[in-house]
Amino acid sequence: MSLRNALLLAGSLLIAVPALAQDPTPPRVTVVDDPFVSTVLRDNRISLKPEREIKVLLPPGYAKSKRRYPVVYFLHNAWYGPKQMIEDGRAQRLIERAFADGVVQEFIFVVADYTGPTTGSLYENSPVSGRWIDYTVAEIVPLIDAKYRTLARRESRAVVGDFFGGRGALKLAMVNADVFGVAYAMHPVATGTGDIPWPGLEVDWPRMHAAKSYAELGGFGRTQIFWAIHQAFAPNVAAPPCFCDLYTEMKDGKPAYNVDRGMAMQKAFLLDETLAQSAAALRSMRGLALDWGRFDTTQAHVISNRQFSRKLEDLGIEHEAEEYRGDPWNRTWTEDGRFAERVLPFLRKHLASAE
Amino acid sequence: MSLRNALLLAGSLLIAVPALAQDPTPPRVTVVDDPFVSTVLRDNRISLKPEREIKVLLPPGYAKSKRRYPVVYFLHNAWYGPKQMIEDGRAQRLIERAFADGVVQEFIFVVADYTGPTTGSLYENSPVSGRWIDYTVAEIVPLIDAKYRTLARRESRAVVGDFFGGRGALKLAMVNADVFGVAYAMHPVATGTGDIPWPGLEVDWPRMHAAKSYAELGGFGRTQIFWAIHQAFAPNVAAPPCFCDLYTEMKDGKPAYNVDRGMAMQKAFLLDETLAQSAAALRSMRGLALDWGRFDTTQAHVISNRQFSRKLEDLGIEHEAEEYRGDPWNRTWTEDGRFAERVLPFLRKHLASAE
Amino acid sequence: MSLRNALLLAGSLLIAVPALAQDPTPPRVTVVDDPFVSTVLRDNRISLKPEREIKVLLPPGYAKSKRRYPVVYFLHNAWYGPKQMIEDGRAQRLIERAFADGVVQEFIFVVADYTGPTTGSLYENSPVSGRWIDYTVAEIVPLIDAKYRTLARRESRAVVGDFFGGRGALKLAMVNADVFGVAYAMHPVATGTGDIPWPGLEVDWPRMHAAKSYAELGGFGRTQIFWAIHQAFAPNVAAPPCFCDLYTEMKDGKPAYNVDRGMAMQKAFLLDETLAQSAAALRSMRGLALDWGRFDTTQAHVISNRQFSRKLEDLGIEHEAEEYRGDPWNRTWTEDGRFAERVLPFLRKHLASAE
Amino acid sequence: MSLRNALLLAGSLLIAVPALAQDPTPPRVTVVDDPFVSTVLRDNRISLKPEREIKVLLPPGYAKSKRRYPVVYFLHNAWYGPKQMIEDGRAQRLIERAFADGVVQEFIFVVADYTGPTTGSLYENSPVSGRWIDYTVAEIVPLIDAKYRTLARRESRAVVGDFFGGRGALKLAMVNADVFGVAYAMHPVATGTGDIPWPGLEVDWPRMHAAKSYAELGGFGRTQIFWAIHQAFAPNVAAPPCFCDLYTEMKDGKPAYNVDRGMAMQKAFLLDETLAQSAAALRSMRGLALDWGRFDTTQAHVISNRQFSRKLEDLGIEHEAEEYRGDPWNRTWTEDGRFAERVLPFLRKHLASAE
Repeated sequence: MSLRNALLLAGSLLIAVPALAQDPTPPRVTVVDDPFVSTVLRDNRISLKPEREIKVLLPPGYAKSKRRYPVVYFLHNAWYGPKQMIEDGRAQRLIERAFADGVVQEFIFVVADYTGPTTGSLYENSPVSGRWIDYTVAEIVPLIDAKYRTLARRESRAVVGDFFGGRGALKLAMVNADVFGVAYAMHPVATGTGDIPWPGLEVDWPRMHAAKSYAELGGFGRTQIFWAIHQAFAPNVAAPPCFCDLYTEMKDGKPAYNVDRGMAMQKAFLLDETLAQSAAALRSMRGLALDWGRFDTTQAHVISNRQFSRKLEDLGIEHEAEEYRGDPWNRTWTEDGRFAERVLPFLRKHLASAE
Repeated sequence: MSLRNALLLAGSLLIAVPALAQDPTPPRVTVVDDPFVSTVLRDNRISLKPEREIKVLLPPGYAKSKRRYPVVYFLHNAWYGPKQMIEDGRAQRLIERAFADGVVQEFIFVVADYTGPTTGSLYENSPVSGRWIDYTVAEIVPLIDAKYRTLARRESRAVVGDFFGGRGALKLAMVNADVFGVAYAMHPVATGTGDIPWPGLEVDWPRMHAAKSYAELGGFGRTQIFWAIHQAFAPNVAAPPCFCDLYTEMKDGKPAYNVDRGMAMQKAFLLDETLAQSAAALRSMRGLALDWGRFDTTQAHVISNRQFSRKLEDLGIEHEAEEYRGDPWNRTWTEDGRFAERVLPFLRKHLASAE
Repeated sequence: MSLRNALLLAGSLLIAVPALAQDPTPPRVTVVDDPFVSTVLRDNRISLKPEREIKVLLPPGYAKSKRRYPVVYFLHNAWYGPKQMIEDGRAQRLIERAFADGVVQEFIFVVADYTGPTTGSLYENSPVSGRWIDYTVAEIVPLIDAKYRTLARRESRAVVGDFFGGRGALKLAMVNADVFGVAYAMHPVATGTGDIPWPGLEVDWPRMHAAKSYAELGGFGRTQIFWAIHQAFAPNVAAPPCFCDLYTEMKDGKPAYNVDRGMAMQKAFLLDETLAQSAAALRSMRGLALDWGRFDTTQAHVISNRQFSRKLEDLGIEHEAEEYRGDPWNRTWTEDGRFAERVLPFLRKHLASAE
Repeated sequence: MSLRNALLLAGSLLIAVPALAQDPTPPRVTVVDDPFVSTVLRDNRISLKPEREIKVLLPPGYAKSKRRYPVVYFLHNAWYGPKQMIEDGRAQRLIERAFADGVVQEFIFVVADYTGPTTGSLYENSPVSGRWIDYTVAEIVPLIDAKYRTLARRESRAVVGDFFGGRGALKLAMVNADVFGVAYAMHPVATGTGDIPWPGLEVDWPRMHAAKSYAELGGFGRTQIFWAIHQAFAPNVAAPPCFCDLYTEMKDGKPAYNVDRGMAMQKAFLLDETLAQSAAALRSMRGLALDWGRFDTTQAHVISNRQFSRKLEDLGIEHEAEEYRGDPWNRTWTEDGRFAERVLPFLRKHLASAE
């Protein structure tokens, strides 16, 4: 049998059963533990440790090839850090399967460590809770480029994030389109405000004002998260114990809304507030997508994402924006879930592989 | 070079550039014109012609093989009938590409003729505007099974529809799950009601009541469509010229809402009204999906589809329901559009091919 | 000065400073404590006490006149029972002011006791948590008619309720329009479902299934309320400790949605489910109104009320339905709030006073 | 019968049937025709006539008293100008009734003439379609103050508007709170954007670009209105025939969205875009209200008003914001409608009468 015929046969097999026959045991990625001590993160008021546990997944072909690879940076949510992700194993299984089936070209997958003593990084620069954008752009990306055979250019760098990490992915596209050419935000939050005015949000303000620390608010979910949100988006190093400007004040035992602080914090926190000034950056992206689950019990996330997509459209910014059946958690890492069936094919389309 | 090595090489090529290298000229489908004279459709009051121009697309492998194939029935919208679809050519190009790339297994694609003198079929049985469900189930499906090498069973029959055809696909899943095992509704309409009460819908009732024919309402879009909707969902063979029970009456020159007629028509027209009683049928589907564009200027369609998905969830009915960036028309037939990137992969997952 | 001239003068005074000059100390209503032992409420499984502390407010003119008065029955919410209402004093001050200013004619105001060991009455008949509709219609109304000089007819009986009491007011209009001719629901809940499917509602099911009593769920707000809701709307006297059919079951330590139970409970719980069959009753009302605050953090209440109003419109049911700036609590009892400026003028229009 | 007794009797009658007995023929207002030639409006490119037909309604007590009166300026919608309003007669009947019943103190009611050859004023300053804000503030208000016994101060000046006039009322509160101390917007439009992106709005762009004049677009409702909207909010005196910067351009026979123009026009057109910078002015208002009918078939108006109210709340701006059952037209001028039952009592509360 000639080579030509064999290839033709292989080609015809391809046509007959292409992509349907799955390799039962696709080649494995290599997980590398990459400890790193950050300089940037030393600057904080919440006892954030600069020691970081970074996980790097090298594609099956990495060891034997000499090529350079595109890199996908993953911004995890607060409940599923790099340690849990690797132990859980689903993400790497989905990536391995996708490499094997040709759903996406091989890439290096980096899960930098965004954990911390509060809710973890909210993916923003703050003198109180950490300058996480600088950490990502000025430390992690150069580190990876220095250590691995990467395609060190925006066209071959993608940022993908989940929940607050989804907000992070969009934010990085808005402020560092020079570094990342592709962004996919999975169920991002804080893209806009929902139907409830800020003076009426369900925060236990008396408790918040009385608290001496984040830990003390344990068990008061939303109130605790708002402590961390203030530290990230309304930081004030001169105002312990929160080191932040709370947008209410206590007057006669009751919380009074402070308009100026409220508005300043909305400006910093909600991505749609600065969207117009980031429009040129976003237009320069090779690929930009967000998606979200329709049945998030915090419908403000859903409403905000719908409006965010409309504003992108008004600003002439090319993007994808799918709202799916599901909540923020139940369709992310399943075999037919958003990462496997939406994020990875999106990367194939937009992430440049050729050297 | 041995066959084994050639296959390994081909395999490695697969890994290196999988699915990215597209065959520049994928094998063509064969378009067959299948004229048919319907008996069912003779029964109508709108001069509907029983002569039908059915288009059948046979997959590239059909002629040389002896296998039987699954069948996909496509329910077109009113502005893009079988003739236009074939002339336009985009649908078949997308199907050919998907067959070649292994995105979906080969199937027979049937575009039966649902055109007519008004807005075309609204995919419902009506003694006035045609019994289109019967036409589909009792005439078209048997015809195709008799004439072509089909896998004549529900597991291998899919119904896919667009706009009113999307409503048709859902309706067939609700009432004929014995015939169709897979359904995908593209931007379906009339799945529920929107935010506006029926007495306040923008219909020119005086003109409607004065009209002698559908044609007379030309240029009055919504009003004309409501004439056809009444014929399909509130038919009355004894009430010319519309042969329908309009849900308003003229009193002193002004339209007065008739509650009983309004409610009866909602029951017939809006799919969510009968969803509970179709739940068992829908649960039996191998695959069920709807999707819709967020930016339909008739937001009632969007709102209704969101609620329809929620009700499916409440009824424990497995399904997909994606809301995408786009309007009802601009993402359907593009190369990266809904048909190519959502419908076809969905069929691969759910439509049974093996004999 | 003749009588005629004096009346003209009085009339001209009316024109000069009408309704603007407020009586600084309007005549007081008389609060009567009316203890009552219910027979109906003995039938329960939650240790509900049959002893009831009813409060009756007699208008200023009652003692000296011999006339009969219309009666307004108030269905309180769970956090503001008859005792608190009277101690708080705002309701009676608003009523006194309105009587004095002629905003509304004099009426008897009855706050029957709907408190209980769980969340209080949910204003429904249940063999587990009390037959509160029967209690109202078969015990309280006859009691008041027997004891006070009432206009004992539907035209002169209004039911007004707040939050779950608002649901109660609508429900009584739906099932006992023979008893009540006027109904005003202040921020009613459970008129329909919101955007989240029932399998995804934020209920701590494992805790619910493990709980031995309502009290044990203290501190778990929504979960505790759902215990009471199940007792009212999915009661099962044979199923301790909740005596209800929870709409999930625990399977392998995880909650599994039970569709049949879910749907049965929606039918019982959500008012829009039975609206069509109550349409004739609602059309017979002399006055029907609901209102709600836009900024309820449970937006499902807001969404449901909007849709409820639309459905009333589709059913041809005359009503008022205002959505106001505010949350469910901050505009109810203020001087310019909903009770003073909307409910009382509404009663003037619709409640019959003349004997 | 003594005077004292007669008054007591009258007083007791007052208590018995207060405000319920309506004067069958309340004293009439005096309608004054006030022709005026505007200087400001000469500056336009749409053949707008400077001759204005102003209607002034003097309260019943005006002729015989020497007092000064507060003034209510009414901004009419495009379909119900001063001539129609007076001929129709409902507005003055409602005002007379309210004066007689003491629902509101006497005031002067001014309906300045905002009609024109296109859709009438859109209540904005434009070099193309007229500087209507200047006309109102620099011509009409001084004219009325000069000619009539007014309380010439912001506390005693209210602006009330309907539909586009509702937008006008809000706009005047935003930019001329020094002139008007009270504002009530009835079903205002253009307070924000709805769910549809601007590139997708239903405008017939090819026809718009081809049109030589506004008149030529007759019969194309929305397209015609967008011509006028462009003239008001995107004027360009150097760009005939529209004298405006259309936010699309025709390319190869198809409309292409021009992002910069779209965004510039949103900034000018949508009130929420400049809300933050007008916050201090709005906080200084003695009374600020908007309301709207839930069943406007252009739901963008409804959605925008809901969000506008939320933003006012976020900005700490006191206001009322009621959404009522109704469409923009069917509850405005009825006896129990918004003007009679909401606007007039609102004026009583907030408009200063005392000299």
